[in-house]
Amino acid sequence: MMSFEVVPQSMHFEAPLPLRSGASIRDYSLAYETYGTLNADRSNAVLVCHALNASHHVAGVYAGQPKSEGWWDNMIGPGKSLDTDRFFVIGINNLGSCFGSTGPMHTNPDTGRVYGADFPVVTVEDWVDAQARLLDALGIDTLAAVMGGSLGGMQALSWTLQYPERVRHAAVIASAPNLNAENIAFNEVARRAIVTDPDFHGGHFYEHGVVPKRGLRIARMIGHITYLSDDVMNQKFGRQLKADDLRYSTQDIEFQIESYLRYQGDKFSEYFDANTYLLITRALDYFDPAGAHAGDLRAAFARATAKFLLVSFTTDWRFSPARSREIVKALLDNRRSVSYAEIDAPHGHDAFLLDDVRYLGVVRSWFERIAVDLEAAP
Amino acid sequence: MMSFEVVPQSMHFEAPLPLRSGASIRDYSLAYETYGTLNADRSNAVLVCHALNASHHVAGVYAGQPKSEGWWDNMIGPGKSLDTDRFFVIGINNLGSCFGSTGPMHTNPDTGRVYGADFPVVTVEDWVDAQARLLDALGIDTLAAVMGGSLGGMQALSWTLQYPERVRHAAVIASAPNLNAENIAFNEVARRAIVTDPDFHGGHFYEHGVVPKRGLRIARMIGHITYLSDDVMNQKFGRQLKADDLRYSTQDIEFQIESYLRYQGDKFSEYFDANTYLLITRALDYFDPAGAHAGDLRAAFARATAKFLLVSFTTDWRFSPARSREIVKALLDNRRSVSYAEIDAPHGHDAFLLDDVRYLGVVRSWFERIAVDLEAAP
Repeated sequence: MMSFEVVPQSMHFEAPLPLRSGASIRDYSLAYETYGTLNADRSNAVLVCHALNASHHVAGVYAGQPKSEGWWDNMIGPGKSLDTDRFFVIGINNLGSCFGSTGPMHTNPDTGRVYGADFPVVTVEDWVDAQARLLDALGIDTLAAVMGGSLGGMQALSWTLQYPERVRHAAVIASAPNLNAENIAFNEVARRAIVTDPDFHGGHFYEHGVVPKRGLRIARMIGHITYLSDDVMNQKFGRQLKADDLRYSTQDIEFQIESYLRYQGDKFSEYFDANTYLLITRALDYFDPAGAHAGDLRAAFARATAKFLLVSFTTDWRFSPARSREIVKALLDNRRSVSYAEIDAPHGHDAFLLDDVRYLGVVRSWFERIAVDLEAAP
Repeated sequence: MMSFEVVPQSMHFEAPLPLRSGASIRDYSLAYETYGTLNADRSNAVLVCHALNASHHVAGVYAGQPKSEGWWDNMIGPGKSLDTDRFFVIGINNLGSCFGSTGPMHTNPDTGRVYGADFPVVTVEDWVDAQARLLDALGIDTLAAVMGGSLGGMQALSWTLQYPERVRHAAVIASAPNLNAENIAFNEVARRAIVTDPDFHGGHFYEHGVVPKRGLRIARMIGHITYLSDDVMNQKFGRQLKADDLRYSTQDIEFQIESYLRYQGDKFSEYFDANTYLLITRALDYFDPAGAHAGDLRAAFARATAKFLLVSFTTDWRFSPARSREIVKALLDNRRSVSYAEIDAPHGHDAFLLDDVRYLGVVRSWFERIAVDLEAAP
């Protein structure tokens, strides 16, 4: 199927955005894309939130770049599960990211210098506030739905708590109500690898003309291990050797899995910003809506009024189905409307980005019902 | 219970030991300790093999150092599960380690320079060969038992295949018949962190007067995550903060789990040798007795004649019970005598080093039967 052409856009905001840390950020831009047409009621908008390594380029391709499909192009587009013939879909790049919105590699208007490590620490809640301002500017008062996977799912959850009146449905996929100790531990090791790389220069590496690639490579390798299931790793790589015979070396590549991880690390270190990595993993660590309610997730979700779809994947050990079930239970305890699908998929956390007919079918049915309701509205 | 005093010993070997890589090593020393008394038949010897971060100092304390208990002191000693009143127990430090046996920080007799990265790559099979030579020198033809946990369990397994006639029993605890792709992946990330640390100097950091501590810290942090279960991490650390309030920082410690991991990494980087880390993780990667039999573990174990004890721990996700069951099945398919205990313990892989009455009881009963048989022998 041919993908549709899209054009990235950007919107500038002069007014300071207050952040959870107590700091604020002003004169910032948000990169975004939209697909489909906003209806006359302005009631068919769906916001799609991204995870660590993604952007506003959610679907479609850029003109003349046939390989430039958006990161959720299998899910979103004309006739797809989230059907851009019926919905007006908005992809947005979060503050602090490195794909177009204002981030650590941009100039701090207060100092005239590149932010670097001085870019303010942002939270999921701050991102949602920034997204809400973009919607204001687009003239969208209420979202038909907000949707995201992993860290994107946390933003979708937070929308239903920060702006309950502005979001009618929320799809929360392969996500969790907060990080557990092991999740934080993996984030911390990745951050230490970056921060202790001598090329990091305390986060001001830009002015030294270097990039802490060693640290970024290690961070990405760790990440990749946690995105994949044990099963799929054994299936794809197992103990396959790179060459016919062992080399008996501690530094050369012996196993295919080593080759794969090094390649992923190298590729990532070429384009991802080290300060962005720190910021985004910290936003993950901090997210904890139950925190303000002594850990009681039921109490936290008392504010939510949206109708929910939760999806988890059986082999996801990063954000296991048990974590999604905590959310489902907290919502049901509040007598909220929740659909929940636990998809038996082999791919681990990565499954939320992959083609699985049952998964794509569940999302399709859920949006289909929303579309029918919308179109039947007086 | 007071621990008993022990004295480390060392034995020198002049003759070259041929290694699986095709290289050989000569003029090397092995550090070892013995506890208990070898009986007149020389039939009550038990060899204990160590894992990554351990040594020949398996049990007891050194004179004047009351806190210097051996790493398996809860298991081994007078009246303990492996009772040194009945068995003659031998702990040995493997070649390439950094706790007394010849390793990368020692001088290569061929060049007069410190080995560093030129220390030959050693395998589990090579270690077992070196251990067999030490037993020869001690006048021990046949082991009553060989015992080890994790990588130590792999050595115990390998003993039953390389020297089936010299080992009557084998206790293989929290181990696996080989590493899977995820295990290799974690090892590889740790190795890359070390090798890409600018202070590694291609493995010849000794002559630069530095230590690749950044890499060692990252390696140890990753290791620690894989040694602990999700459950025990959540129980011990959860999302507990270090201070009362969030600092909103990507580099300062926010969570207790970060503090714990950094401490473990710092401590490790002070005493562990970087080249040893590479060598030992590689030995783990390479171990695969089924490899020579087209992956058929049953065929691999056809040579084994020992009686086995296998122990695994339910929350061990590094070497899960399923991996132990593969060994049990392969042995049963060969109609070998196997006892198998799957201990419901919360501590993950680390459980094999901890006190658990059921675990220590299983090992005690198993050795008790061996002791009774020995003492009844004509």
